Amino acid sequence: MSAITIKLLAERLQLSTATISKALCDSHEISANTKQRVLALAKELNYVPNAYAGSLRGNKSKTIAVLIPEVADSFFSQALNGIEEVALAKGYHTLIYLTHEKIEREKAILNALAGGRVDGAIMSVTVETDSIDHIREFNRQLPVVFFDRVCEEIDAVKITTNDFECGYNATRHLIEAGCRKIVLLSVSNSLSIISERSKGFKKAITEYGLNEDDCKTIDCTEDPMHNCQLIKDMMQGNNRPDGILATVEKLTTEIYLVCQQLNINIPRQVKVVCFSNQSSAIILNPTLTTITQPAFEMGRAAASVLLKLLKNNTLILKEECAVIPSTLNIRNSTTGYVSEV
Amino acid sequence: MSAITIKLLAERLQLSTATISKALCDSHEISANTKQRVLALAKELNYVPNAYAGSLRGNKSKTIAVLIPEVADSFFSQALNGIEEVALAKGYHTLIYLTHEKIEREKAILNALAGGRVDGAIMSVTVETDSIDHIREFNRQLPVVFFDRVCEEIDAVKITTNDFECGYNATRHLIEAGCRKIVLLSVSNSLSIISERSKGFKKAITEYGLNEDDCKTIDCTEDPMHNCQLIKDMMQGNNRPDGILATVEKLTTEIYLVCQQLNINIPRQVKVVCFSNQSSAIILNPTLTTITQPAFEMGRAAASVLLKLLKNNTLILKEECAVIPSTLNIRNSTTGYVSEV
Repeated sequence: MSAITIKLLAERLQLSTATISKALCDSHEISANTKQRVLALAKELNYVPNAYAGSLRGNKSKTIAVLIPEVADSFFSQALNGIEEVALAKGYHTLIYLTHEKIEREKAILNALAGGRVDGAIMSVTVETDSIDHIREFNRQLPVVFFDRVCEEIDAVKITTNDFECGYNATRHLIEAGCRKIVLLSVSNSLSIISERSKGFKKAITEYGLNEDDCKTIDCTEDPMHNCQLIKDMMQGNNRPDGILATVEKLTTEIYLVCQQLNINIPRQVKVVCFSNQSSAIILNPTLTTITQPAFEMGRAAASVLLKLLKNNTLILKEECAVIPSTLNIRNSTTGYVSEV
Repeated sequence: MSAITIKLLAERLQLSTATISKALCDSHEISANTKQRVLALAKELNYVPNAYAGSLRGNKSKTIAVLIPEVADSFFSQALNGIEEVALAKGYHTLIYLTHEKIEREKAILNALAGGRVDGAIMSVTVETDSIDHIREFNRQLPVVFFDRVCEEIDAVKITTNDFECGYNATRHLIEAGCRKIVLLSVSNSLSIISERSKGFKKAITEYGLNEDDCKTIDCTEDPMHNCQLIKDMMQGNNRPDGILATVEKLTTEIYLVCQQLNINIPRQVKVVCFSNQSSAIILNPTLTTITQPAFEMGRAAASVLLKLLKNNTLILKEECAVIPSTLNIRNSTTGYVSEV
């Protein structure tokens, strides 16, 4: 059997090859009636598109890229599951790329992808992403949807959670539980989410009239050993905090370990809240008060809107943005109650 | 400037296009001297390969696929980091595909990949993978390296850990800690790793002369609520176990929760060991005895051998297989000592 090409389909249906091509990609520019005729003939003749030839002709690859810093984090692994659920249902491949928090890697990935391997990208930027030309450049060619860690300066759809409010609510919760010296354990200043959480933290500190010198922000790193030392120094210092708000899940282990080592009781001597989606929060000693992000739902929302953009590039981006609220789950790490063994 | 093609390079160097192509792919069939001449001219003329055209011509895509069941699991997320470290250093793209433990998804992914999107694949099969024709079919065209969850029947490189020994050692540890009624919480019988762990478990039970009726295997599912009920029924039954060996990380939360609810003390009333790489094992209540797998190292080894195979397809596969041992980390969940708050 000779190969069935778009040209052949066009000849048979007396349509242009561009129309056939767009109909096969389910473009909004083609009427439902025409799409149906094209698909029926394609099916009858057993037309199989060649993925690579398709790319060369500028067709869709039916593939989306997801750029995330890492997978060893409950938020990102749950968000990925949300993205995949939507992509799978719509017949899209998902290519997952890890940036490992390196802007150089983010640049290299976007550069390589701009070559036509994917139809669009969903991304959460790295902690190093302070310049954004590489994202702008990619976005000139292909649609980008940001989730969680966004670039405010770029006109694109952003799926976020209420980070400012969460920073504020978590801090207020610590203050109402009796804390007066609250430290924010942070990771970077260029990340949108961290700066929002930090603003919420500072607003609560000011509003409740706490001493700002006692309520500092400490920047942690990617190195667990270094973070343990930072936390140890902080807990052994003259002005020991009685409350900790950690902006990153993985700091949990480090905070708990240092307190164990120094024999500092959580929650009696220091109360702890973490931004975290880890399922083990409920079986820690003590159980951990968390701000739980709607990771799965954010992933779903990001994928849904990207697939919508691929079909219809006339959408108004601002109207597609969504803020899905997180939940403060109060557990023993911030209450007076200590679980008995 | 007109496009620099492989044909042009071939003409200038008076070599065949096949030789140029192989030299650019760093094939072992081409001498170091020829490679150097080709690369020097390619660099001088600023030759840029077109990824998609390359694929059509049967060249390498410099991309490897990784098929794993999920990322919300410390083992797989750490293994991915190992794979990416090696791929990155050698200039390879890594495409991560999640099978979500579905054989149909595994089939669809391998089918799509066989079209030429990648040069080879690293995979850990799903719990449903009881037939393997789809993997055989893919492997006829492209190299596959298995890691952790392997297919014994397929002649390919396998990177595993000592699952049999670990099942045996963990069970022996429970017996030596005083357990006489030990239950193996399992997930599936078709997985190589689970069957090996189970064989090790049974060997220890027999060797130490424990009553086999008291030392059962219970099959858990993908549904946490269902698993909680299974564990609850088991812990409320007539013949309550005094030891639990869990073959899957995520069962930890369910075991701890049920014991909390039923007011059953770990380790005094039941001792618990999990196959787990979660960093929170050391801050759980009580801290968890784990069999920690060399996830990162296994990922590194799998990627290294796949890249080796891509350069030299005459390697003897059996000789490339590796078994990297896991570690039993004894903590409070299996000792008499209960951590004080």
